[in-house]
Amino acid sequence: MDKILRIDVGAPGGPAAKTEALGTYAGLGGRAMTSTMVAKEVPPSCHPLGGANKLVIAPGMLSGSAAAISGRISVGCKSPLTGGIKEANSGGQGAQVMGRLGYAAIVLEGKPADDRLYKIIVNKDGVTIEPADELKGLGNYATVEKLAAKYGNKVACITIGQAGEMKMSAASVAFTDVEQRPTRHAGRGGVGAVMGAKGIKAIVLDDAGMKMRQPADPEKFKAANKAFAEGLRKHPVTGEGLPAFGTNVLTNVVNEAGGYPTNNFKTGQFEGASKISGETQAALENERGGEGSATHGCHRGCVIRCSGTFYDKDGNFVTKQPEYETVWAHGGNCGIDDLDVIAQLDRMDDDFGLDTIEMGATIGVAMDAGLASFGDGQAAIKLLQEVGDGTPLGRILGNGAAVTGQVFGVERVPVVKRQSMPAYDPRAVQGIGVTYATTTMGADHTAGYAVATNLLGVGGSVDALKPEGQVELSRNLQIATAAIDSSGMCLFIAFAILDQAETFQALMDTISGFLGKPFTADDWGTLGKSVIDNELAFNKAAGFTAKDDRLPDYFKNEALAPHNVTFGVTDEELDTVFNW
Amino acid sequence: MDKILRIDVGAPGGPAAKTEALGTYAGLGGRAMTSTMVAKEVPPSCHPLGGANKLVIAPGMLSGSAAAISGRISVGCKSPLTGGIKEANSGGQGAQVMGRLGYAAIVLEGKPADDRLYKIIVNKDGVTIEPADELKGLGNYATVEKLAAKYGNKVACITIGQAGEMKMSAASVAFTDVEQRPTRHAGRGGVGAVMGAKGIKAIVLDDAGMKMRQPADPEKFKAANKAFAEGLRKHPVTGEGLPAFGTNVLTNVVNEAGGYPTNNFKTGQFEGASKISGETQAALENERGGEGSATHGCHRGCVIRCSGTFYDKDGNFVTKQPEYETVWAHGGNCGIDDLDVIAQLDRMDDDFGLDTIEMGATIGVAMDAGLASFGDGQAAIKLLQEVGDGTPLGRILGNGAAVTGQVFGVERVPVVKRQSMPAYDPRAVQGIGVTYATTTMGADHTAGYAVATNLLGVGGSVDALKPEGQVELSRNLQIATAAIDSSGMCLFIAFAILDQAETFQALMDTISGFLGKPFTADDWGTLGKSVIDNELAFNKAAGFTAKDDRLPDYFKNEALAPHNVTFGVTDEELDTVFNW
Repeated sequence: MDKILRIDVGAPGGPAAKTEALGTYAGLGGRAMTSTMVAKEVPPSCHPLGGANKLVIAPGMLSGSAAAISGRISVGCKSPLTGGIKEANSGGQGAQVMGRLGYAAIVLEGKPADDRLYKIIVNKDGVTIEPADELKGLGNYATVEKLAAKYGNKVACITIGQAGEMKMSAASVAFTDVEQRPTRHAGRGGVGAVMGAKGIKAIVLDDAGMKMRQPADPEKFKAANKAFAEGLRKHPVTGEGLPAFGTNVLTNVVNEAGGYPTNNFKTGQFEGASKISGETQAALENERGGEGSATHGCHRGCVIRCSGTFYDKDGNFVTKQPEYETVWAHGGNCGIDDLDVIAQLDRMDDDFGLDTIEMGATIGVAMDAGLASFGDGQAAIKLLQEVGDGTPLGRILGNGAAVTGQVFGVERVPVVKRQSMPAYDPRAVQGIGVTYATTTMGADHTAGYAVATNLLGVGGSVDALKPEGQVELSRNLQIATAAIDSSGMCLFIAFAILDQAETFQALMDTISGFLGKPFTADDWGTLGKSVIDNELAFNKAAGFTAKDDRLPDYFKNEALAPHNVTFGVTDEELDTVFNW
Repeated sequence: MDKILRIDVGAPGGPAAKTEALGTYAGLGGRAMTSTMVAKEVPPSCHPLGGANKLVIAPGMLSGSAAAISGRISVGCKSPLTGGIKEANSGGQGAQVMGRLGYAAIVLEGKPADDRLYKIIVNKDGVTIEPADELKGLGNYATVEKLAAKYGNKVACITIGQAGEMKMSAASVAFTDVEQRPTRHAGRGGVGAVMGAKGIKAIVLDDAGMKMRQPADPEKFKAANKAFAEGLRKHPVTGEGLPAFGTNVLTNVVNEAGGYPTNNFKTGQFEGASKISGETQAALENERGGEGSATHGCHRGCVIRCSGTFYDKDGNFVTKQPEYETVWAHGGNCGIDDLDVIAQLDRMDDDFGLDTIEMGATIGVAMDAGLASFGDGQAAIKLLQEVGDGTPLGRILGNGAAVTGQVFGVERVPVVKRQSMPAYDPRAVQGIGVTYATTTMGADHTAGYAVATNLLGVGGSVDALKPEGQVELSRNLQIATAAIDSSGMCLFIAFAILDQAETFQALMDTISGFLGKPFTADDWGTLGKSVIDNELAFNKAAGFTAKDDRLPDYFKNEALAPHNVTFGVTDEELDTVFNW
């Protein structure tokens, strides 16, 4: 990863590629790369869909190497949804393949001369760019199918569906998984709309003939990497819970804790939770045959393997096993307790190229607006189809919950910085409320997953229902997460490195072995803070203030059943999260 | 005006009225009343459509007295469009009648228990509140017709149309004029949506049996008021231009200056301008008979009399003579050069209860999105009808240009603080650009009408195409305007008081005579500054920063024909506007 690929989409005659040295970006990966580059090169006041914005795609620091579970990739830009800086993180094959191709970043920049779509093909011989007229208007599945037919079944694809072409603020960038399906998404904040605004439909990465990235200190790296992987395998969450049931193992846990946002964040427990839990999902999958509830990795080199496959009752592939947040978004948040409906909605999101969290939250708001009844799965499918079809109603929904709330005059809209809250009610899981409120990203559970310590007993224990200790918890998690997102590691390693000092040390040693120089816990913390500092500076220059680091008032005024609790962390406390 | 009427719309059993003394609000009128009360009583972080927001309706300090042209009324709240404080100002009969009824403010507060609509009737005997089921879904014209049938043809009505009921961010509050037609609107910022969110369809003001408000020093007041009215009559703008052609006298002036935003702010001159100018409009009206181009006041006591009436070719009433900004919004900004089409759009806006500026700018953005062609009047009518019908597309458009731009992925959206720019391109009229950028209201020409000094030679002369002197000009005009908006005077008095020192002094003496105590130019300036200070404090607490005091980047990057000029006032200069 010694070079950067820049595509000037506005070059005369169509997009032009230029490869350059890393320069000041040397050593950066993932979120550190995207956020540093966006903060440095994108004017904070620019229009997210305009020529001044850039879409930066960057594999993690260790991606493309033999480091366990290092296949995460970051997509950064100024967000069309939040108006602030954005890093959306994805699994899939993109990171490893791009790392092996040697690119630390692919940057889409400039303004297309016309509405034509293009595809970019990167392989060992270099970069070619071709018109992609044949892909116009296609969903991600059909797009990838056409690309596979032409470029083979080994390439990794980075694509947008109809939502990205329509520049919707909920549009994602899709990455193909190990089975070459577009099931992994840089979902949040409308990064797909920026790719669409650049007129790029697909990036095809072909690493044939390329080698794995080699560590500078192979012996140290190998030993540390082995200890790290062992640490992941022995932790109950990463070694048992996630492999057994996937992320949906959380449904029962969060619902029992009374923090499961139901019917557009009206109560904290969902009557139908047991019908859509990970346990029920696994039983259903086993009943339907195929590989049943067996899980596998979303990218080569994963040792947690929390991905699964969802088949319909006739044994036909529908989608990857929907993640917990997706099951919640299209399930409990909309009062829907039917796994087949949820899987179909997940498939549609993946195909249109939409953030499942934003879409579930949006349909919840639309239900509050009276467009459908809570619990009506077929109505939800119909609403989502409108998005893919680009009808006026679909355009509204595809631009997320904040727009939908405004357009239909709904007051209760669960967003921070105009981005929808995920699957944990901040009143009953107050630590995640601090993260939602303060992260540079807009409401985002992955930015500092306090659920771990609030509900799962990982990394210690902080009472989920009380404000005490939540700021410090969120702060530390946000720092660690920014570092993880830069390393290329999957966020799920956090469970093990929080609880097992030796696993954390093994990670430091893995990085050190790869770089061939010391890398300590202090370096790790410094990395995380520096990433967030860059993001804070961008957001400040874009006009964000402490007033944007707030939950909507109703989380402070409306008590959540069953614990009858409101969000209790004060504004003054929130304002100390980034004091370091 | 010695009392405040508060309506708790969430009281058990339906809205309840309470009359209270002025207390700390004594002496305030118009914008000073609305902005002071909103800043003091509305939490800046609240949802604009929620129970914590308040809608404050306040006649000016002199409204209801014999003071010439003192019939303006202010409607204030937290704006659903901008998220900041809002004062939308209207003519019509409301101010004078409400003043004579003795209410310095009517405040709608709280949260309705259900979706039922109510009407409030205020007369000499007090206040009654009744269900308004029979008015549900009606436009302003039909609403007023029904109210007149019941309450007589002398009452003043304050109403919302379908847009307000649907809580659209472009919804206005309508005030009936001298002919009891709902042609005068507190248009900007979605104040009608807040009235709709309070479940109040209409306020009927009946001043039968009430007397004119009396000055404390009748002799001084009478003499000063006479001199003031004479000053208005002798100034060329207020004494000749406006009475002869109405505000549309500006079309040719602004177009010739190259500052007439055409086809969604793409060029500064419109080919069809002469077809829709005030002069052409007057000729058309004379040709069609009736009172022809004769003008009259929008409220009793007006001495400028810039209102007119627009009839169709068969002599049927269509609407009031469309104002310049309306003719621009639905005309040149959409490439439309047909006065009949423009009048029909104006009538539809008035009936649905929509801000004509926001709607014209929105349709311009929609045309850029490809929903219709520039110049296609019938398509514009169809789009606007969708708003009244509340279709999904109509819901998008009815929420303004910023939402429409986001929903359809349009980059060039002419808004500041999410409110659409009016009829003067800030590149060719740089003084108004300073006002658009910095006023607390979002892009608003009336907040500091630098066009006067940039293009009309009123109040001195500052080169419209250059940044020099614009900040000071806008600052002084914004202060004076905040004072005028508090006095109840029509903003058009500014032409005369800027140019004629004796007319300005006559205004001070009129106020002094009314109050029975000294009122000086210093008091006037202090009043204006204090209003703006309150507004700035609210907006700051709501999260606004200097970054919100900016024009969209393209006004700085795209040169405007024919003068090939970009907006040249620097950010640093903009940040000094409120240094006093």
